[in-house]
Amino acid sequence: MRCEVVAVGTELLLGQIVDTNSSWIGEKLALIGVDCLFQVKVGDNFGRMEFTIRQALERSDAVICCGGLGPTQDDITRDVIAKIMGVEMKRDDAIAQHIRDIFEKRGRPMPENNLRQADVPEGATTIAQMPGTAPGLVCPVLVDGVEKVVYAVPGVPHEMREMMEGTVLDDLRRRSGETSVIHSRVIRTWGYGESALAETLADHVDALDESGHATIAFQASGIEGIKVRVTAKAESHDAAEKIIAAEEALIREKLGDHIFGVDAQTMESVVLDMLRERDLTFAAAENLTGGILSTRITALDPAMEVFKGATIGPHGTAPDDSAMTGEDRAVAAAMHAREAIGTDIGVAVLAPPADEEHPPGTVFAAVVLPDRAEARTVALPGVLSRMRSYAVITVLDLLRKRLSEG
Amino acid sequence: MRCEVVAVGTELLLGQIVDTNSSWIGEKLALIGVDCLFQVKVGDNFGRMEFTIRQALERSDAVICCGGLGPTQDDITRDVIAKIMGVEMKRDDAIAQHIRDIFEKRGRPMPENNLRQADVPEGATTIAQMPGTAPGLVCPVLVDGVEKVVYAVPGVPHEMREMMEGTVLDDLRRRSGETSVIHSRVIRTWGYGESALAETLADHVDALDESGHATIAFQASGIEGIKVRVTAKAESHDAAEKIIAAEEALIREKLGDHIFGVDAQTMESVVLDMLRERDLTFAAAENLTGGILSTRITALDPAMEVFKGATIGPHGTAPDDSAMTGEDRAVAAAMHAREAIGTDIGVAVLAPPADEEHPPGTVFAAVVLPDRAEARTVALPGVLSRMRSYAVITVLDLLRKRLSEG
Repeated sequence: MRCEVVAVGTELLLGQIVDTNSSWIGEKLALIGVDCLFQVKVGDNFGRMEFTIRQALERSDAVICCGGLGPTQDDITRDVIAKIMGVEMKRDDAIAQHIRDIFEKRGRPMPENNLRQADVPEGATTIAQMPGTAPGLVCPVLVDGVEKVVYAVPGVPHEMREMMEGTVLDDLRRRSGETSVIHSRVIRTWGYGESALAETLADHVDALDESGHATIAFQASGIEGIKVRVTAKAESHDAAEKIIAAEEALIREKLGDHIFGVDAQTMESVVLDMLRERDLTFAAAENLTGGILSTRITALDPAMEVFKGATIGPHGTAPDDSAMTGEDRAVAAAMHAREAIGTDIGVAVLAPPADEEHPPGTVFAAVVLPDRAEARTVALPGVLSRMRSYAVITVLDLLRKRLSEG
Repeated sequence: MRCEVVAVGTELLLGQIVDTNSSWIGEKLALIGVDCLFQVKVGDNFGRMEFTIRQALERSDAVICCGGLGPTQDDITRDVIAKIMGVEMKRDDAIAQHIRDIFEKRGRPMPENNLRQADVPEGATTIAQMPGTAPGLVCPVLVDGVEKVVYAVPGVPHEMREMMEGTVLDDLRRRSGETSVIHSRVIRTWGYGESALAETLADHVDALDESGHATIAFQASGIEGIKVRVTAKAESHDAAEKIIAAEEALIREKLGDHIFGVDAQTMESVVLDMLRERDLTFAAAENLTGGILSTRITALDPAMEVFKGATIGPHGTAPDDSAMTGEDRAVAAAMHAREAIGTDIGVAVLAPPADEEHPPGTVFAAVVLPDRAEARTVALPGVLSRMRSYAVITVLDLLRKRLSEG
């Protein structure tokens, strides 16, 4: 089955907004086994939109149109699709009332043109998910006697995603004649290089390829580590989940504590969850990383209930004792942060002093827990900005491993 | 003149990479007055690439192909263009030698397939800028007796940009028959709402529209403030620059110190430059902003020569005196950071205590200089994450204004 994406909006062509919707949709289509051979950006122009959608319908089975569903005069996706379907527009009273209700709840007067969003081409159905004021549409179209389909979803990313995940992807799979379901899980790892990871799992991947009931793919994702995506196809949701759970167990056996989370979990969300569960607080001495750790952590803990604070820069760390090793200095800095800020745990990330010789990218990371301290010397790749981000993940990963031990 | 963009790469359709190149090109084309009506993403497939480029050539005067110029077997942009031109490929010896030299300089053996990048369709010329190993191409194509052009540039963004700015945009303008040049400058403002800014400049914009020798456009850019873009068309670079300088002077008169910079300058780059010029250092107490200020500043001052450090979280600030106003507490925190870290200047951003009532988004920002202290109470819009970013710019802007006074 083939499905194209048409992203609608003059602002996309002018570069005022980057079209991330098509990329997101492309990824989702690949996961359900639908081929996406073209993605086109077109402006808010009737003729060019009509041409683009018609062409996409000729060479594919389905088209997803993103954008142009708003209330203003240049939002014409509905009208273009009605013309292609060869039908009139009909106002959907339930949707119209729903839009009125939304404005009433917000306590704002509704400009009359908002009701344009309740106009639905005859024969089209609206998508149940409606996080905004614009309904999505499923529009069947006959092309040379073959039933094809145009989906219209809003350009607002979170609205588009809700409709895609709630309706469009399932509908596409149903139309493709697939009765099976596809589930996938991303297993997130840190500490492996891509080739080492692939090698560790090589035998298992080969066996999977033969059995055919699940697939494994690797995706190197920079400071997010390497993602291992397990995809299973089965006759039911339960059966797919069962396959994935079995796969995950096998992979966990092989990769051990290199796995820090699954799916949307991040290194910082995992560490924060572990600390919350254990009722522990922590503080940081960010000498090398200049605030990146604090920024990432406080984004998830804005009230600073777990992460109590940090010092940025050399002030406030232990006195510079040139007799100390880098690791000892990192431990002293973590200890100092822990004591000064009054937390259970302290972490620190230091660069070597300028007058010492170390391999490029050398970083000292330390974690001080109530009952023990640990430090690591690592050599991180890349330019300084990248190295700093890696250093943040490195020290969080060290903390994660120590927490998971007890 | 019309120019389409074709972004080549299966990884774009799969959503593994977001196509930001087309957006960047679209913005540049608009600035030189070239219409870009379609932008298409297509995979590394000969037939579909040929179809897409041919269709773009039929409806436009020029096509920019991004990507598919690398050394591997799936990099086939060169071959597709040669077929469309109806010519053979010829190896360019100078380019081949240049590629060999690049590998030699890097001290790495050159895989033989890298020389594929030196293959040039007959009749095409190579683009002088060559930051990587893949040359860009300017390929004239006759379509129904009309001379059109296909440009091939790499998908690596910085390589693409260098070729666009060094060759392609000028070549497009020349082909469009324009002998004039277009220059533009972005004047960066903070502290105005979009409508207030537009109103302040309204008379001037009207006058400009009549005179026709320059245009002004506004772009609200979130925490980057509102950008005012001045574009001038003239017979020479000097003449265009002269018009822009005169416009900038007029706008500066009207907007005064709401202007913090031009073009690529950011609030933090401007503040850092001012501090460097004055040989001053600063420190921050980031109670509300959780490390965002430190992260943004240390990205530009990684050695921490100007920005000496910060405290994140409530620790280390002045004792919590409930008799103090929010502004007084912010000044005390800034003073404490300045003294504890030992700098000339301290800044602080605080949220009100939980037990006090304040309008949503209230933030106290303070700047303490050697000879005076100043605080502001502001109400910032949006969710917490957005509010924090605004708070960072707010306190940096306050510092900028005080520094510019003397």
